[in-house]
Amino acid sequence: MTAFQDWLAAAAARRRDLGLVRSTPVIDPADPAGPMLDLAGNDYLGLRTHPTVVAGAVAAATAYGGGAGASRLVTGTLPIHADLETALCALTGAPAGLVFSTGYAANLAAVTALTDADTLVISDAHIHASLVDAARLSRASVAVARHNDVAHVAALLAARAQPRAMVLVESVYSVLGDAAPLAELLEVCGAHGAVLLVDEAHGIGVTGDQGQGSAAALRISADPQVVLTLTLSKSLASQGGAVLGSPEVRDHLVNTARPFIYDTGLAPAAAGAALAALGVLREHPELAAAVRHNSALLADACGVDAPAGAVLSVAMPGPHEALAAVATAAQHGIRIGCFRPPSTPDGTSRLRLTAHADHHPHDDLAGACLLLKELTRG
Amino acid sequence: MTAFQDWLAAAAARRRDLGLVRSTPVIDPADPAGPMLDLAGNDYLGLRTHPTVVAGAVAAATAYGGGAGASRLVTGTLPIHADLETALCALTGAPAGLVFSTGYAANLAAVTALTDADTLVISDAHIHASLVDAARLSRASVAVARHNDVAHVAALLAARAQPRAMVLVESVYSVLGDAAPLAELLEVCGAHGAVLLVDEAHGIGVTGDQGQGSAAALRISADPQVVLTLTLSKSLASQGGAVLGSPEVRDHLVNTARPFIYDTGLAPAAAGAALAALGVLREHPELAAAVRHNSALLADACGVDAPAGAVLSVAMPGPHEALAAVATAAQHGIRIGCFRPPSTPDGTSRLRLTAHADHHPHDDLAGACLLLKELTRG
Repeated sequence: MTAFQDWLAAAAARRRDLGLVRSTPVIDPADPAGPMLDLAGNDYLGLRTHPTVVAGAVAAATAYGGGAGASRLVTGTLPIHADLETALCALTGAPAGLVFSTGYAANLAAVTALTDADTLVISDAHIHASLVDAARLSRASVAVARHNDVAHVAALLAARAQPRAMVLVESVYSVLGDAAPLAELLEVCGAHGAVLLVDEAHGIGVTGDQGQGSAAALRISADPQVVLTLTLSKSLASQGGAVLGSPEVRDHLVNTARPFIYDTGLAPAAAGAALAALGVLREHPELAAAVRHNSALLADACGVDAPAGAVLSVAMPGPHEALAAVATAAQHGIRIGCFRPPSTPDGTSRLRLTAHADHHPHDDLAGACLLLKELTRG
Repeated sequence: MTAFQDWLAAAAARRRDLGLVRSTPVIDPADPAGPMLDLAGNDYLGLRTHPTVVAGAVAAATAYGGGAGASRLVTGTLPIHADLETALCALTGAPAGLVFSTGYAANLAAVTALTDADTLVISDAHIHASLVDAARLSRASVAVARHNDVAHVAALLAARAQPRAMVLVESVYSVLGDAAPLAELLEVCGAHGAVLLVDEAHGIGVTGDQGQGSAAALRISADPQVVLTLTLSKSLASQGGAVLGSPEVRDHLVNTARPFIYDTGLAPAAAGAALAALGVLREHPELAAAVRHNSALLADACGVDAPAGAVLSVAMPGPHEALAAVATAAQHGIRIGCFRPPSTPDGTSRLRLTAHADHHPHDDLAGACLLLKELTRG
């Protein structure tokens, strides 16, 4: 064995010993055992297989082909990309938008392109891995603020030596399912000349009375100091991401964001699916309230506070217990997920459940709630 | 204006002064002015709008929906992802594969997950931005080797203090269109216990008698010290990427690669389009020779050496001259691209042309070759 093979084998053995082996189980919707109740995926509005969304994907692939064929800067910007950017701005009230091929890329781009060595990036302790990686990849100095601790953010901003600063938060956090205090954060950012970047991955489609997201609901999405990022792969039932902000922010990203410049444009079918999902949400803004209603039901069953959005999180004693609960739920036809180290910021293993607007509170969720009560209250 | 707005405005002014403003021009295939001859995009095999590829995208969206709905580790691995991984292995002869939502993500994942602080990463001076960013994001030490200089790579490997090393190259480079000396590089890597990572972005579909890529053509794709990365967005006419290597490499990525774990699975339509494109290539391996024939024709017209693949590169005096040539070609109905700083590793502005298997050498390319002769020989 070479040094590389030895290293791979040692890491694999360590994972096995810790009970932290991950895999990629194939989920076949045509499984003859029948569909399971999905409380694990991120299709919050239940639009992934909605006929309008599928039709959007089909029409775009038919009109434009399998891929965009080039970087957006060369020949890879199609009319449907421009339409999607317009529709995202219409939903959120942001002045301008730029679509990426993943949400991960959108976060990498926003942080790396909008900061430099003269910027302090302050990231909330619970932000998503893509923002952590974005901060690491940037030329900025990075400080971590305690989760949702506005005073800590203010202190870090006040003590900084850098002329510029950017604060990274999520409108709804995936770790605990709680919301960021956006109004207070923006006030602090304003007082200290900092940009507030809000990742709306779990907000779009879910928060606000129209599913417009938390920044739009607070009417801060057009503030030139606010930058929004989002994914098209959760509520919008597709793939891709976007950065929303001022026209100047969009221009700057087009000209300098490496994950934009050196990537092929979003596939037409993905743009078409997301655009169609935005249309369904516009016609049915009540989907946002439905998903929050269902997440409150699930939280009640699990004995935790109602989350801010679709995601809820239930602490478990350890990774083995979390996996056992996932396995028991699966035996009962219910798919739930879990977060185990190294995916958790504090080493705590958690069940991770997601609510979906297309689950009927009584028909679909009644049995699930009974089982969850058992699984989470030992 | 705030400090952030000032900073954005100053950067925009600098770009304008340097003639380096980029934009996202919308390319509408339904443009009433008629289609242009595309010598700029990366649809090397001309499969983007091939009926089989479009049908693959349509069938997958219909069967599985608009998006994968979750991380591949949760509920986001669909049968079509497994099929695509199998098909990529069949084409390239690699033992195992893992599909990502972009080629950029595949490169980030391969380098960050397969190296650590005890690894020296040696990157060729001409590697793609995604590999540069991947090396920066990794915990490894990074050294840059002179372009295609095997002796320099050997010297860096021999002088290293780290127990492990990874050498980053592309089978066909986009900057100059030349090939890496893979056999020699693998020999040096073997002698020094290093992993050879070969980005086949411009190789798959183009090099080898079946379009199987350069590593497969050299029969080194099953070597446990070789890791291949590729994109689905060039010859394979879709969106996405993959890392190919030993089963142990795949397992390690599934368990540790953050751009895999924290991303939604590739959209079904993109997987379906790429799978269909692989099928067309299997039926028509002559497409690989056709694109190389056309790139040789274009190179001859431009007075440069025939490139190793589909991409060719013609040095121009400066960014303004490059842009002027692009504009003149557009007036003649021919779309070509250019690389300008900061996209070029040496500050040289270049025309960047791509050959496509579906262009007829006489009908489509005769006029283009005449014009290119004029544009490039001033």
